[in-house]
Amino acid sequence: MLWLISLLAGVTSIALAVYLFLHVGRQESGSEKMQEISAAIREGAMAFLKREYYTLSAFVAVMGLFLAVFLNHSMALAYVFGSTCSALAGLLGMDVALKANVKTANAARKSLVDAFLTAFYGGAVMGLSVIGLALTGISILYYIYGDPNVILGFSLGASSLALFAKAGGGIYTKTADIGADLVGKVEFGVPEDDPRNPAVVADNVGDNVGDVAGTGADLFDSYVASIISAMILGSSLYRATAQWEVYTVLPILLAAAGIFASLAGTLFVRVKEGGDPGAALNRGTFLTCLLFVFFSFLLIRFLDVDLGVFYATTAGLAVGVFIGITTDYFTSINRGPVKKTAEAAKMGAALNILSGFSYGVISITPTVIGISVATLTAWYFAGLYGISMAAVGMLSITGMVVSTDAYGPIVDNAKGIAEQSSLEPHVIKIGDKLDAAGNTAKAISKGFAIGAAALTVLALFASYSEIAEVEMVGLSLMRPDVMVGVFIGAAMPPLLSALLILSVGRNAYRIVDEVRRQFREIPGLLQGRSKPDYTQCVDIATKGALKELSLPSALSVMVPLAVGFLLGKHALGGFLAGSIVTGMIFAVFMANSGGEWDNAKKYIEDGAIGGKGSDVHKATVIGDTVGDSFKDTAGPSLNTLICVMSLTASVFAPLILEYSLLK
Amino acid sequence: MLWLISLLAGVTSIALAVYLFLHVGRQESGSEKMQEISAAIREGAMAFLKREYYTLSAFVAVMGLFLAVFLNHSMALAYVFGSTCSALAGLLGMDVALKANVKTANAARKSLVDAFLTAFYGGAVMGLSVIGLALTGISILYYIYGDPNVILGFSLGASSLALFAKAGGGIYTKTADIGADLVGKVEFGVPEDDPRNPAVVADNVGDNVGDVAGTGADLFDSYVASIISAMILGSSLYRATAQWEVYTVLPILLAAAGIFASLAGTLFVRVKEGGDPGAALNRGTFLTCLLFVFFSFLLIRFLDVDLGVFYATTAGLAVGVFIGITTDYFTSINRGPVKKTAEAAKMGAALNILSGFSYGVISITPTVIGISVATLTAWYFAGLYGISMAAVGMLSITGMVVSTDAYGPIVDNAKGIAEQSSLEPHVIKIGDKLDAAGNTAKAISKGFAIGAAALTVLALFASYSEIAEVEMVGLSLMRPDVMVGVFIGAAMPPLLSALLILSVGRNAYRIVDEVRRQFREIPGLLQGRSKPDYTQCVDIATKGALKELSLPSALSVMVPLAVGFLLGKHALGGFLAGSIVTGMIFAVFMANSGGEWDNAKKYIEDGAIGGKGSDVHKATVIGDTVGDSFKDTAGPSLNTLICVMSLTASVFAPLILEYSLLK
Repeated sequence: MLWLISLLAGVTSIALAVYLFLHVGRQESGSEKMQEISAAIREGAMAFLKREYYTLSAFVAVMGLFLAVFLNHSMALAYVFGSTCSALAGLLGMDVALKANVKTANAARKSLVDAFLTAFYGGAVMGLSVIGLALTGISILYYIYGDPNVILGFSLGASSLALFAKAGGGIYTKTADIGADLVGKVEFGVPEDDPRNPAVVADNVGDNVGDVAGTGADLFDSYVASIISAMILGSSLYRATAQWEVYTVLPILLAAAGIFASLAGTLFVRVKEGGDPGAALNRGTFLTCLLFVFFSFLLIRFLDVDLGVFYATTAGLAVGVFIGITTDYFTSINRGPVKKTAEAAKMGAALNILSGFSYGVISITPTVIGISVATLTAWYFAGLYGISMAAVGMLSITGMVVSTDAYGPIVDNAKGIAEQSSLEPHVIKIGDKLDAAGNTAKAISKGFAIGAAALTVLALFASYSEIAEVEMVGLSLMRPDVMVGVFIGAAMPPLLSALLILSVGRNAYRIVDEVRRQFREIPGLLQGRSKPDYTQCVDIATKGALKELSLPSALSVMVPLAVGFLLGKHALGGFLAGSIVTGMIFAVFMANSGGEWDNAKKYIEDGAIGGKGSDVHKATVIGDTVGDSFKDTAGPSLNTLICVMSLTASVFAPLILEYSLLK
Repeated sequence: MLWLISLLAGVTSIALAVYLFLHVGRQESGSEKMQEISAAIREGAMAFLKREYYTLSAFVAVMGLFLAVFLNHSMALAYVFGSTCSALAGLLGMDVALKANVKTANAARKSLVDAFLTAFYGGAVMGLSVIGLALTGISILYYIYGDPNVILGFSLGASSLALFAKAGGGIYTKTADIGADLVGKVEFGVPEDDPRNPAVVADNVGDNVGDVAGTGADLFDSYVASIISAMILGSSLYRATAQWEVYTVLPILLAAAGIFASLAGTLFVRVKEGGDPGAALNRGTFLTCLLFVFFSFLLIRFLDVDLGVFYATTAGLAVGVFIGITTDYFTSINRGPVKKTAEAAKMGAALNILSGFSYGVISITPTVIGISVATLTAWYFAGLYGISMAAVGMLSITGMVVSTDAYGPIVDNAKGIAEQSSLEPHVIKIGDKLDAAGNTAKAISKGFAIGAAALTVLALFASYSEIAEVEMVGLSLMRPDVMVGVFIGAAMPPLLSALLILSVGRNAYRIVDEVRRQFREIPGLLQGRSKPDYTQCVDIATKGALKELSLPSALSVMVPLAVGFLLGKHALGGFLAGSIVTGMIFAVFMANSGGEWDNAKKYIEDGAIGGKGSDVHKATVIGDTVGDSFKDTAGPSLNTLICVMSLTASVFAPLILEYSLLK
């Protein structure tokens, strides 16, 4: 009956999410002008979401049928259930974020405190929905089937949704951004964010789509995968022992502890008038961590589980925070790497690009060290089970991380709305302050998400070897099939990121064509006498993004299956290991290089080395455009793609065991 | 006494190299003006080589002492011997290349046939010296010690030399190139290759240093490493069998077969007046391949060795050719990837860079497939020994590859000399024709070198596990120490390339400062009334390059030792596997992305999409500058760095076995 605790935690989290959803909804929305701007973004984002979910349901239906035919009905049901839960969390989070932006802008006219809380509670709806729906779903499935392997289907469903939300959203957002800039600014001389540009709404929609819905789905995915792989390892490694069931349900109990910690953390996020919102967010995260450590200690003592497991989870959590903070160093506007990258632009765009590229690559060091330390520590204290529990520990603060991350686009949009509706200077100033806190939070949560994904796929790899009944020696690097698997697996993440980057380029051309058409065919558009057709641009960008997604997502399902069925389960094990390693390297380097270039540009826009409009600034704009596709499309999508590959391997392992060509 | 065959082959190759050296030396050197230009390049290149070898001897002395103290004297002697042999090959090759350029230019006044043969024979001196000195050295050491493990020292010596020649040369060449461009063209408005620019000689020297000496040392390194790892595996895997000695010496016998094939191939390279020099080079390579397959078949039948070994070597050779040709597709000026990258520049530098980056990454596919097929085929036919023999097979045509590769810079320089001495148009035309053939040869040999290095380090990895007495299960990916090793190892190649790229930037600043100083302090320099101090620029670039090299080369020795002594031999095995995988991926992607951008620029300079001077052209110049550091510094250095790491691990394996913290 222990699983009831986790169900209770999940339902409580959903309840609080719904309460905050209604609470934010009750706030005032400000002037008509403000509501009009907000409505345009809302309309575009909902159009994107609608089409995305529409395509997704077709995908889920086909995939569900496939699972039902080749595996079993329960797996198929769990799959559909998983994608539905994640979609629901995304819908709730997006809906409230698109309301909270204008309400935050309006609240800023009153005070910083009101504005901050409106934005943060808006973000918290996403955070609490993600962990609440995930844990509720897992608990229900475990109650019904009592078999962690079925819940793999739930996890694969969540991954499929994440693929669309994160990779599809990533292509979409950069398509709109680059497309709007290229044709608007360059060809027609229209300033950025000018309402005459037909692609401007599509561009504004992008931030919400990529950051709110995308990151939410990404962490939903990692969160579920880490829990389920720990459950699988618990149930198989301790099968012969008396504590078998305790080890199997411990992951969901710890997740419940994480939820209670996150609820408390959320409610304690407070800022004084004139205070620092960034510090308030950090205090919330810090409190959540402390409470989780405390709760998990009590739980583990109470259940009479080996204390080694406690050390493992704590190590995971500590490393998650470490990776988040070190990532911030490499992309912070006040630190050496960004400043040097900006300096290099004095010698032209090429050296700026080389510098951002290099520091981005160097920034993999703390992540590699962190993951290595977490792995070895967890293993030392609690074996293979410990590694998966380290992932659970790291992801225990997911609720808080998603909340602060979703806060970012809300205040970003709020600031935009305040500026475009010409609100008073002190309101804009509050907006700036809130926005700066959001940017730091975003940088940290990006690093955290990558670290969490790396540790999660490591745990998934361990659970794959259990499911596929691979013996220790079967995954030896001295086996050529394993080594070939590693080679092919390692090539996948770079390959997929290249495909995603090319997708952005191709899709941007579509926007460019459409914008040109509108300027040509709508009379008086350039003079501001008539309105552009925003929806058409959103629709083209969305359709294009989903179309471009088909090759990378097909590869991430088909290649592991091909390796498994042709070269066998050992090669597939090597494949997963290879994909984890380069997946992590490319995800970190691309995210951080992108961050470098972005902030190097901002550093110069703030007045350093010539300032805005200088040749140096122009050079950094080139770097920033290169970085956009790195940090917002390719980099963050890799987490999801690796997760999809790992889950595909685990779900289809029973078939591969039976039908593979090589054994 | 079988080893006598290989000694004979080695000595014959050296003899022919010396004969061609003298033959080229006897050709006429043309007008005074031509000799003057050639002398300036020669002076600079020799200044570079002198300082490089000077620093290198200090490094070799310290490392030799270290080996003598901690391991044994024979290892130390072999180490010094290895670096000396490779240095000698480099010296011979450079010396003749620096003569052959002006003689080729002069011969072009007579006929294409004369010019082509002068250049090709000049290149062949390098090719034949490399394989001749390598095989002679190995044969002598094997005769003296009878123990392949000692020859590991020879291989590490060659690797140390390659590190300086390839990575140091790589930093040097791009430093000079970027430095000369940035300050000359951008700041002072002096055209490219203008004699008033103090860095112009340093720039011209760069091609010889990077391509002739660098590639020669790189392939010397791979060639020796592949042979020695096959010998180690032969001697340990077949220890209990009657054919033990045959399997141990077979690698050097096959190398001898390769030498005889290369000698024949070299002598049959012929071109008719008005013929295609590229086709002549390809015919030579093709003939060498065929002869090697024939010779190796006879040898293997004669020695009564299992025919599986023959299939393994042939598979290796076939894959080498396959990788070379497919690489050409991705970087050829007439194909889709380059054209699309050039098209993308219409939308600005950022999209040009993203396109070149993406296609470069995608171009890893054929290499990954090729290496996988070679590995699995070789293993299927001849087990672990087969994999190392595949590497030997692939590298059997090293002599021919180095010859055609060294031909490139000779004709490139010859063309430059012809233009700068204002020779007749038909001479320039011959120069163009010879140069075009050189560029294709260079692209193919670059792909070949990477493929060869990948297969070689795979063989080294296998021999490491033999030397370190690692059991199959000890290298299981299910061991966390192995997985952590893979993580750290995989991070090394990207990290090292980032450090090398940053080095180029830093070193370029030094050149910029010096050029500025000369323009400021030498009166009348900008007006062409006085001569700049070329040597000073060469010296600064050289000193800077060697200084910048210290961190990456220290890391490539220290990190494997740290992993080995701290985390143990299993983690070190994982480390090597990880470094091989990402090393290959980064080497291929960087080389080919660089090639893409370079040729996209040339495509536009040839008149497409606006042509030279247009905005599109300017965008591709930015891409090309980014690519320079990728393709000429970071990418090609990775082969050597991985090789150094693998050899360090193998050489120190006995100590690690005894003293490592974790076991």
